[in-house]
This record gives sequence, C-alpha cells and structure tokens, in this order.
Amino acid sequence: MKKKQLMQKLLTLSDIKTNGERKGDIIVNNPKLFSRILAKGSLGLGEAYMEGWWDCEDLDIFFDKLLSAKVNKKIKPINAIFPLIKAKFVNLQNKKRSKKVAEQHYDLGNEFYSDMLDKRMQYTCGYFKNTTDLEKAQENKLELVCRKLKLKKGEKVLELGGGWGGFAKYASENYGVHVTSYNISKEQVAYARKICKGLPVEIKQEDYRKAKGKYDKVASIGLCEHVGPKNIKKFISLVNDCLKENGLFLLHTIGKNSENKYTDPWIEKYIFPNGSIPTIPTMANAFDKKLVLEDWHNFGSDYDKTLMVWYDNFNKNWEKHKEQYGKTFHRMWRYYLLMCAGSFRTRNNGQLWQIVLSKNGIRNGYESER
Amino acid sequence: MKKKQLMQKLLTLSDIKTNGERKGDIIVNNPKLFSRILAKGSLGLGEAYMEGWWDCEDLDIFFDKLLSAKVNKKIKPINAIFPLIKAKFVNLQNKKRSKKVAEQHYDLGNEFYSDMLDKRMQYTCGYFKNTTDLEKAQENKLELVCRKLKLKKGEKVLELGGGWGGFAKYASENYGVHVTSYNISKEQVAYARKICKGLPVEIKQEDYRKAKGKYDKVASIGLCEHVGPKNIKKFISLVNDCLKENGLFLLHTIGKNSENKYTDPWIEKYIFPNGSIPTIPTMANAFDKKLVLEDWHNFGSDYDKTLMVWYDNFNKNWEKHKEQYGKTFHRMWRYYLLMCAGSFRTRNNGQLWQIVLSKNGIRNGYESER
Repeated sequence: MKKKQLMQKLLTLSDIKTNGERKGDIIVNNPKLFSRILAKGSLGLGEAYMEGWWDCEDLDIFFDKLLSAKVNKKIKPINAIFPLIKAKFVNLQNKKRSKKVAEQHYDLGNEFYSDMLDKRMQYTCGYFKNTTDLEKAQENKLELVCRKLKLKKGEKVLELGGGWGGFAKYASENYGVHVTSYNISKEQVAYARKICKGLPVEIKQEDYRKAKGKYDKVASIGLCEHVGPKNIKKFISLVNDCLKENGLFLLHTIGKNSENKYTDPWIEKYIFPNGSIPTIPTMANAFDKKLVLEDWHNFGSDYDKTLMVWYDNFNKNWEKHKEQYGKTFHRMWRYYLLMCAGSFRTRNNGQLWQIVLSKNGIRNGYESER
Repeated sequence: MKKKQLMQKLLTLSDIKTNGERKGDIIVNNPKLFSRILAKGSLGLGEAYMEGWWDCEDLDIFFDKLLSAKVNKKIKPINAIFPLIKAKFVNLQNKKRSKKVAEQHYDLGNEFYSDMLDKRMQYTCGYFKNTTDLEKAQENKLELVCRKLKLKKGEKVLELGGGWGGFAKYASENYGVHVTSYNISKEQVAYARKICKGLPVEIKQEDYRKAKGKYDKVASIGLCEHVGPKNIKKFISLVNDCLKENGLFLLHTIGKNSENKYTDPWIEKYIFPNGSIPTIPTMANAFDKKLVLEDWHNFGSDYDKTLMVWYDNFNKNWEKHKEQYGKTFHRMWRYYLLMCAGSFRTRNNGQLWQIVLSKNGIRNGYESER
C-alpha cells in the first residue's frame, strides 16, 4: 500500500475527510503532509500542524475520532501508522530544545495562565458535577478534595505540589486546617504566598521529596504526572512516612491504560518535557503494600470539559498575548489543549483519578463523597 | 526467648491476657497450647480451638486485637511467630481431608444457610449504609449493584457465579432485565431456578468459563475469590469478550493487600479449600489493558457487620442443627465467622471491593453510586 493510500485508509476508518466540511475534517495545505506523518508519526503530525501544513477547525473532534477508531487494531501494515496512534516512538527530541521549550512553557507567567484558568488558578481538572461553569467546577473539585479527606478544624495537612496555592487557601479558609505546601516553582510560590497571607498556610519553595514531619492528611493534586514511574514507589513511601496512624491521603492525577505506554512524543517535546502519566498497575504496585485503598474515582470526561473552557479562554484573550508569543505558539497551544480534550473525550486514553488511601484502613469504614 | 515467653510477649503486645476477663482475653485449657501454636502457626491455633484447647468468648475481638497489633513488625525473633500473623506457611493440609471438609462445607445444604443468611440467601457482604439490619443491607447491596450497572429495561445481563439466584431475581423483577446466570452448584441452581420461575432469568448449571454471547452488562458477585490469581486474566478476558461495546462490568469481591500474600492455612484447610483472595496488583494487571476502570469502592468494614449477624443467626438456630453437625463443627464455624469478622474489622487485612469497569470508557463519563 502506498503512503498516501495508507493515510487515506486511516482517515477513512476514523471517519475523517481531507478537505471535507464536517466537524473534525482536515484541510491539507502541504502535499508532503502524509509523508511527514508516516516518517515521524505523532511528532510529525503536531509539528506539521504548528507549521501550518494542515488545518482543522475542530481539532478536538479530529482527535476524538482518530483515537476512538482504534485504527491500529483494524488495518495492516500496522508498523507505519502505529506511532501515530500509540506514540510508541523513539524519543526524538533534542534535549537542549526540550529544555528551551520547557522554559518557554513554564515561564509563560501568571498573567498568561490567569487569562486561561479560573480565578483560583487551578491548572488541573475541574469537577463538573451539576454545573457547566469552570469557576464552579474548580470550586467543586477543591470542596470534593476537602470532603474526601474529611478535613477537621486544626488538622495538619501536607500538600505535595501546590500550584498557585488554590487548595491551601481553600482548605485553610473553609476547613480551618493548617497547610504545609511544597512547590519548586518560584513564580507559583510567590503568588501562593501572597494569596494565603494571614492564613495558617506555609508555602515551602522546595522539592516535594524534602517533606518531613507527621500530618493528619496529605493531598497531592496534579504532581504525580511529573513524578515518573520509577519514583512513584518512593513518592508513596514518603507519603506513608508523613501520615499519622489514622491518616488519609488524596491523590489527584491523570492516569492512562498501560496500552498507551509511551507519552505522546509531541506532548513530551513541546508541552511536558518530563511528564509521565501513571498506569493502574504502576499505582497499585506502589501503594499496595503500604497504604489501604479506600476509594478510586474516575472523572476523566470532566477533563474534556475543563480543557475546552481553557481553550475558549485562551482564544478569547489571545489579542493580549499575540505580540509576545506569536503565531506558531498559538497553533502549538491550540493543538495541545484540543488534542488533550479529544483524547479525554474518547474515555479510552486519558483518565482523571482521585484515589483515597489510608495509612491503616479507616476504622469503621471510609465513606467517600461523589 | 523461650516459647512461652515469646507467646506471652506476643499476646501482651496485642493487649490480650490469658485467663483474663476482658473482651478478647483467652482461657487456656491445655498447657501444650503455646507449643502447638509455635509449631503449627495459624493452623495450630485454629485446630487447637476446634479441639477445645483454648476458649474465647469474643473471638472477633481477639482477632481484631491480634491482627491490628502488627506484632510481626514489633518483636524478634520473628521467625517463630510470623506464621501465626501472616500465615506464610507451607500448605500442611492433607488433600484428602481437605476434600472431605470441603464437601462437608458445601453440602451443608440450603436449610443450614437459610438459618444463617438473610431471606435472599446472600452469602456475600451486605451494604450497611443507613441501616443496621442485614435484610435491608443485602437489599441495599443488590440495589447498589443494579444502580452501578445502570440497568435499563430489556437489557441482557450476564451473571458469573449466581449463588442462590438472589441477584438474578432482584434485577429482573426490579429493573426488567434478562439475566443469564452461571453456577456449578447443583443445589444452588435448583433453588435459584425455583425462585426465579416466571422471570426472564436463565440459570445455567455450568462453569462460568462456558459463558458466551454478547451482553449489555456483566455482574460477578463473590466468584472472583474462587477464580485464583492465575486465572484472573482469563476471567477478565472472558468478561471483555462477552461485553457489548458500551458495556459495563461490576465485580464484587473480597480483596487483600499483597502483604498478606498467603491464604490463612486454617481457612484454606477447613473453610475454602481452593479459595484465593485477589490483590490490587493482580486485579490491575488483569483489567488494565482490556477494560477501563470507572470506579473502585471499598466497603470492607461492612463485612465485619455482615459476619457478626451471620454468627448471631447461626448461634440462634444452632439447636436445630446441633445433632447433625456436632460440637467440633460448631467450634469450627464459630472460629471461621468470628476470625473473618475480626480480620475485616482491622481494615488492614481483608477488604470488600466493588469495581466497575467499562469496555471502552463510558462516553460523557461514568457517575457512580454510593
């Protein structure tokens, strides 16, 4: 089968047309597009998009269709297109360039993020139960975490990976707990300290591995994706060491099926250079002998909703940032948000887990919130 | 350290007195007791109890104290007492005798069980949310399963391991679904067919591995404990094959931490000869590449409550069965129910899991019931 035919078959199986007019259809601007994708898989697809070789009005629908079709199970020869679907790819990125991109990503600064996120600066999945509003969904999420942790006034809470301080502020204000929060990002720490001023919150600008002491509760929201599978056992051991005997731990993280073992190389290169999404066996092997699993909640479809609002906000506020970041950045960021939205929408790729673990099993049982 | 001293230390650390008067204290009737326990561990403890070498009014509290104390982590030499706590034991039982006991156990018959269980003959954990009544708790459990499976009128449901037909009857009566249920026990099948007469229920007296066809939903309540870790992957594959594309699977099973890797040898010998409680990694590795985890609910502490009511019922009705089964059987059954109750009470040993898995991830998200 020739390259072009193979790509056409792949797209047809995914119900995507080139130069079609339905949602999710693509416009090909450069005839070399298919060769580039076949040669470089997922990475080539993304880079070609950034460079304008193809367009798609509804990228989220494109990815939803592509990933839902499970094309790799349907056609042969599989080798040529497998990288595109499963991203089983040699890591092609140049380390220096990664670093540069990473810095670019993380140096985007508070203003850029505040234009995309909710007012609490939650850069993790919201909880859209009984709402379609992101502000409410992020409040729901923080409230859910507090209630799952059964926070009581005066308790000591350890937070590993604190972002812009939204959880620390919410928990201390609404539940009267003392929060010690670890974060290595200078800019986030400064912001978090500002908004938590006067509250019983201590923001430490240190790696989470430096955490010590004994706490009633531990929360970790969106850190685990950066810990890496080789460090997850140590991460769980650290939590175990920091928990009092009747302690509870809430872990909020993106997860994935083992089948999608490799991180998408485009995401790895342009968005999260050291990201590593855990699988269920990875998590299970890490906590099984140490902590007791009390509850495992999956609300991955809410990440689709979260990302679509972020994209909408990003787009609405683009005029402000246009000059600073430029067109290629806009295409990159759009591709990132909408690819992830489509991926969560399939429900068969990315998941969002809130896992509650206890040190010894909660006497008389643990009742979880939903 | 001498044997007796070691045993005394173990008991003291567990806050248990010999010939004391508090709940959970034991009365030693035979001075050779400690030697027997040290020689044969958990098996010796149970057999000595059956033979009247020791007594304990509140065996459930005895086991709760013993297992909660995590004595193996506190004193040395550990080797001598380790088998007692962790049951890491060579399997000592004589195969013939096991078979005999097994037959005795399973041939106890419907009357014996109906005197111990609720009216729906649920020989699995009840759900004691907002109730202390076993009848209500078992109804709750069946209702919870139906609601977690989002049963809709006319759907086809496959049940693997059907017991006395309680779920098939409840689901078809209350949700209008068609249930096909597999069970190898002749006596249970006859009973189930009788109570399900006139309902859209098909009870097959066949091994669950014979199941075929495509179903909207699959339920398995209390079978997984008998499947064995080596067969769990095949079990999950079978479920996967039997599920339609939008299908849901509910798995209700006892679980345990990997730390307690071996089945208690006394339980293995006298109660469940081929029992094998799964661990989280065992489950995770089985379903991870096939099904999507939607929800993992743990209500292990309700098994403590369930077992205490079963024990109470068993005791109340003992006069009826006394002559047929005899005194040693009574001690064996009492030991079994109360040891398990104590073990679930610690929350650190046995767990009760309801795991909901979908074939491809439920589009727009899965919302679980509690």
